[in-house]
Amino acid sequence: MSLVVVGSVAYDGVETPHGKVDRMLGGAATYISLAASYFVPAKIVAVVGDDFAQEDFDLLASRHVDLEGLDRVPGGRTFFWQGVYSADMNDRATLRTDLNVFAGFNPTLPESYRQEPYLFLGNIQPSLQKSVRAQMPGLKLTGGDTMNYWIQDFRAQLLETIREWDFLLINDSEAGLLSGERNLRRAAAAILEMGPHTLVIKRGEYGAILFRRGMHFVAPGYLLESLIDPTGAGDSFAGGFVGYLAGRGIGAPLADADVAELRRAVIYGSVMGSFCCEKFGVDRFRTLRRDDIDARYQEFANCTTF
Amino acid sequence: MSLVVVGSVAYDGVETPHGKVDRMLGGAATYISLAASYFVPAKIVAVVGDDFAQEDFDLLASRHVDLEGLDRVPGGRTFFWQGVYSADMNDRATLRTDLNVFAGFNPTLPESYRQEPYLFLGNIQPSLQKSVRAQMPGLKLTGGDTMNYWIQDFRAQLLETIREWDFLLINDSEAGLLSGERNLRRAAAAILEMGPHTLVIKRGEYGAILFRRGMHFVAPGYLLESLIDPTGAGDSFAGGFVGYLAGRGIGAPLADADVAELRRAVIYGSVMGSFCCEKFGVDRFRTLRRDDIDARYQEFANCTTF
Repeated sequence: MSLVVVGSVAYDGVETPHGKVDRMLGGAATYISLAASYFVPAKIVAVVGDDFAQEDFDLLASRHVDLEGLDRVPGGRTFFWQGVYSADMNDRATLRTDLNVFAGFNPTLPESYRQEPYLFLGNIQPSLQKSVRAQMPGLKLTGGDTMNYWIQDFRAQLLETIREWDFLLINDSEAGLLSGERNLRRAAAAILEMGPHTLVIKRGEYGAILFRRGMHFVAPGYLLESLIDPTGAGDSFAGGFVGYLAGRGIGAPLADADVAELRRAVIYGSVMGSFCCEKFGVDRFRTLRRDDIDARYQEFANCTTF
Repeated sequence: MSLVVVGSVAYDGVETPHGKVDRMLGGAATYISLAASYFVPAKIVAVVGDDFAQEDFDLLASRHVDLEGLDRVPGGRTFFWQGVYSADMNDRATLRTDLNVFAGFNPTLPESYRQEPYLFLGNIQPSLQKSVRAQMPGLKLTGGDTMNYWIQDFRAQLLETIREWDFLLINDSEAGLLSGERNLRRAAAAILEMGPHTLVIKRGEYGAILFRRGMHFVAPGYLLESLIDPTGAGDSFAGGFVGYLAGRGIGAPLADADVAELRRAVIYGSVMGSFCCEKFGVDRFRTLRRDDIDARYQEFANCTTF
C-alpha cells in the first residue's frame, strides 16, 4: 500500500541569513515524498525537464520513491523558483518564477498508481487536483494543500475540489482567507463545513493545530538550535503527516483510535518540518534516519507533557 | 502563607476592535493579585491617588487581596495609561501615560508582609524591585517581570536585581533584547546564566515556554472563541503561574516533583491569561470561579495530549 504524491518537482535558488544556494533540488512533491518515505512507500506524480540531474533522480530513488509518474519532457526545462528570506525567516520574497514544463502539467497517473489507497495533492490548480483524484477509484484517504492564489482567484473550483477530501492542510493566513474569519477557531469551524472532516492549520515556527468537529489538538513548533533554511518545511510537515497515517493504514471511516493517530501524525509532521529546516533544501534528508525521527518525536512528548 | 505582589495599580483607557473604555481599573499588580487570588492569599504593594474608587478597593477586597500595602496618597492621582490595539490585537500603541503618584513609588512593606515566603515583583524600576526583596528575609520563591525600557537603559541595575531571583517572566522580544540572541533556545540558555533557575518566555497568542537548564516545556496559547481585550493578559499569566506555585508550597530548592509543578503552573498561567482576554479590563474576574479555571486546565490537557 503506497502513497501517491502529486505536485511540483523543481529547482530552487534560495538566500537565507545563513547563506545562498543558486540552484538546488526543491518542489512540493519532492519534499512531501522524501518526508513520507520514512513511513510508507511513496509514488511521485510530477513533471521535469531534461535538465533534471541524475543525482536528483538518484536521491529520490535512494528513498525508494517510485518515479514512474515523474514525466520528463524532452527539450523542456524544470520549474525554477528563486526567493530570499527576511532576517527572522518568517517572510520571504519571490525573486523569480519560471514555470517552464510545469506550465503544461496535466497529470495522468500510471496504471500502477491507480489502485493505491492514499493520495496527497500538493499545491497545484484545483481542477488538476480534482482530475487526479478521479483517476483513483480505491482511495481510503485523500487530502492536500492549496494557497492564497487558488483561494482568491479559483474559489469555486477549489471548493468543488476540497469537498471530496478527507483532510486539508493550510497555513493560518490561508485559513483566514478561505473562511473569511480572522479567529482561528471560527475559521476552522467554517472550513470543516466545506467537506474535509479534518483540518490542519500550520503556523510556521509556532507549530500546527488539528481541527475536527468538536475537538482540536495543538502541536508546538520544535525549538530549533539553528534554523538554516525554512524552504520545504510546510511540505515536509505534509509528508510526515500523511506518510504516518498511510503507514499506519488509517482511512475513512475513522474510529476513535484513528483520531488519536491523527494527533500523532501532526507530531510526526512537525518532526519532519523541523528536520527540513536544519540544512539547505533537501540536504537534511540525505542523512536523516528513522531513529532520529523517533527520538525527536519523544522530545515533543517530553516538552508538552504536564 | 501568602504571596506579596508589587507593581502598579492604575486606571486604563483602552480601545480594541470590540469597543472603547475611557477609564477602568488596571495595572500589573491588580491583574497579578486578582489572578493569583484563586490559588493563594495575595498581599498587594502599590500606590494610588485619592481618586481611587471605593468600588475598585471593593473588587480587590472581594478576592481577599490584602490592601494594607496599598498606599493612598492624599491629593494625588492614580497612574493613568491609555492605549489602542491593532486590528489583530497583536500590537498596541500608547496614547497617554500619566505616572502621577506612581512616579514617587518607593515601596516600603508593612510589617505584616515581611515574613511571607512568596514574592512577585511586577514591572517597575529594577532597583525598587531589589529593595523590596531585601525587605523580605524569609523568601522561598522570588520572581518577576521586566520590560524593554529597563533592559536597554538600566541594564546593570537589572542584572544585579534578577541575579537574586528564582524565576523571570518575559516576552520573546524582551528575551532577545536581554540575551542578545534571536534564537529562543540560545536566548534562554544565556538568560539562565544570569541568575534565575527558571525562565518563562511569553509568546502572546502562541502560548509560553518554560526553560530550565537542560529542559523546556511548551504550553500552547488557548484558542479563544473571542478575544475582546488583551490588556492584562501577561500579568494574569504571571498571577496564575506564581499563585499556583505559592498555593502548592513550591520553593527553593526544587525537587523533581516541583519541576513537574512548574509545568502545571505555566498551564494555570495560560488559563488565567486566556480568561482575562474574554472581557474588558478585569471584568472577567468579577464572575470567574475556581471551577471554570479547573475546567479550562482540563481543556489544555485534552488539546495537547497525544
